[in-house]
Amino acid sequence: MRDFSSGPCPIALNTATLGPRASLKDAVEGCLRHGIGALSPWRDRIAAIGLAEAARLIGDAGLAVSSLCRGGMFPAPDAAGRRAAREDNLRALDEAATLGAQSLVLVVGGLPSGSKNLAEARRQVEEGIAGLLDDARKFRVRLAIEPLHPVYAAERACVNTLGQALDLCDRLGAGVGVAIDAYHVWWDPDLSRQIARAGSAGRILGYHVSDWMVPTASVLNDRGMMGEGVIDLKSLRAEIETAGFDGPVEVEIFSQNNWWTRPVDEILSAIVQSCRNHA
Amino acid sequence: MRDFSSGPCPIALNTATLGPRASLKDAVEGCLRHGIGALSPWRDRIAAIGLAEAARLIGDAGLAVSSLCRGGMFPAPDAAGRRAAREDNLRALDEAATLGAQSLVLVVGGLPSGSKNLAEARRQVEEGIAGLLDDARKFRVRLAIEPLHPVYAAERACVNTLGQALDLCDRLGAGVGVAIDAYHVWWDPDLSRQIARAGSAGRILGYHVSDWMVPTASVLNDRGMMGEGVIDLKSLRAEIETAGFDGPVEVEIFSQNNWWTRPVDEILSAIVQSCRNHA
Repeated sequence: MRDFSSGPCPIALNTATLGPRASLKDAVEGCLRHGIGALSPWRDRIAAIGLAEAARLIGDAGLAVSSLCRGGMFPAPDAAGRRAAREDNLRALDEAATLGAQSLVLVVGGLPSGSKNLAEARRQVEEGIAGLLDDARKFRVRLAIEPLHPVYAAERACVNTLGQALDLCDRLGAGVGVAIDAYHVWWDPDLSRQIARAGSAGRILGYHVSDWMVPTASVLNDRGMMGEGVIDLKSLRAEIETAGFDGPVEVEIFSQNNWWTRPVDEILSAIVQSCRNHA
Repeated sequence: MRDFSSGPCPIALNTATLGPRASLKDAVEGCLRHGIGALSPWRDRIAAIGLAEAARLIGDAGLAVSSLCRGGMFPAPDAAGRRAAREDNLRALDEAATLGAQSLVLVVGGLPSGSKNLAEARRQVEEGIAGLLDDARKFRVRLAIEPLHPVYAAERACVNTLGQALDLCDRLGAGVGVAIDAYHVWWDPDLSRQIARAGSAGRILGYHVSDWMVPTASVLNDRGMMGEGVIDLKSLRAEIETAGFDGPVEVEIFSQNNWWTRPVDEILSAIVQSCRNHA
């Protein structure tokens, strides 16, 4: 296990962590000030300044792009909706390739409006990813399926466990893997086994950290800084590194009423410090 | 699959569904007015009038007691805490036996205060149930492990999937089974397989219904009446009955800002109607 307490601490900043006020430029410059070497931008931050300018900004700063957030959202009530999802995912792949992102994170989508058919939504997810794989291979961007906490099954993602995501990967073949987010998977009694499985299949494309607060004021926007909550992040990283992952630890914290209200430099200092001590 | 639309609709009323204002007497009399044949009381409702009076009230009404809510809460920071939990569970077993309850529902407890060790909490749960089993057999009360939604892993229950609960049952032997609550398990990609497994092992001791609202205002107290949300309750009951379950469908709805604000008779009418149409 890598020693973050004294050695280099490979962090990727997910731009959502700085909250809705911060621009891509704020994120890039903040990374440089705080010695953070990689970035995982959300697409709205890219769109706000345009793809070419975003690529120039990140490239000039010498930052790696660990992943692009996000593609996915495959299920839809009708074929037109699913075609629109495919087109949006193709644009996301183009953006990811232009930015040199190593993967495109997929938040796969939940139940289509009006539907109670979770099995059908899951079928549409698989069909959607399968239909995108050839394009992803051409773009040389890997697709990182992110299983989301079961609390999001209805509205955001109907892939809810690492095991389920890996079953999907097994059926889909090369070019697809998983992004493992501690917040989403920490509760899973089958987690250790599935991490080992993901590693031996070479499927771990990203590892995201934050913390689960007790109590949690909102399951959407009350994530904690590492060490503030109850996730045993060090043990989790040990398992993920034992499974072969050696990429940056991506910090993705949604915290509307706490961290997002603070200055960018305070957030970034806390990230570096808490990664060293707790992640 | 039983036809609830025209035939008898075997419902058990969980007293929590009437909200904090309603007494055990309100619940019992309400069941009689609305043709509901079974009750699943919470222990605070029993304690409020005393066990003997509660047993007399329910017995005189001729209601079946499908289960008692609840025992569990096994993990604790120290041995004294775990002893206190055992003693409380013994009292719960005595109450369940006195009331003629067919099972004691176990909400097993989450992380002890200050702990991040989920594996240890789960070990303590297993030890706690194992230490209660002989007593439960003497009382002739079965222990119904209720896997809770993963969103409650930290604070309420570290048994979070039906598969995990059944693994526990396999290790524990006779006298223990599961209470399957639609709200807690509907998202699980492995659900169908685990329901069949539970049935063939004779482990299904209860089936609870409510609905998952979209959006959900609070994961604690914003459950929906059957049909208000996105759970495909009819398909779920079909699977559970195919697996052999033929007991009453227990209605357990926590709904602080909606159903709990309404008169008892309005809630009970809605329960009967929505069980007929949607459950």
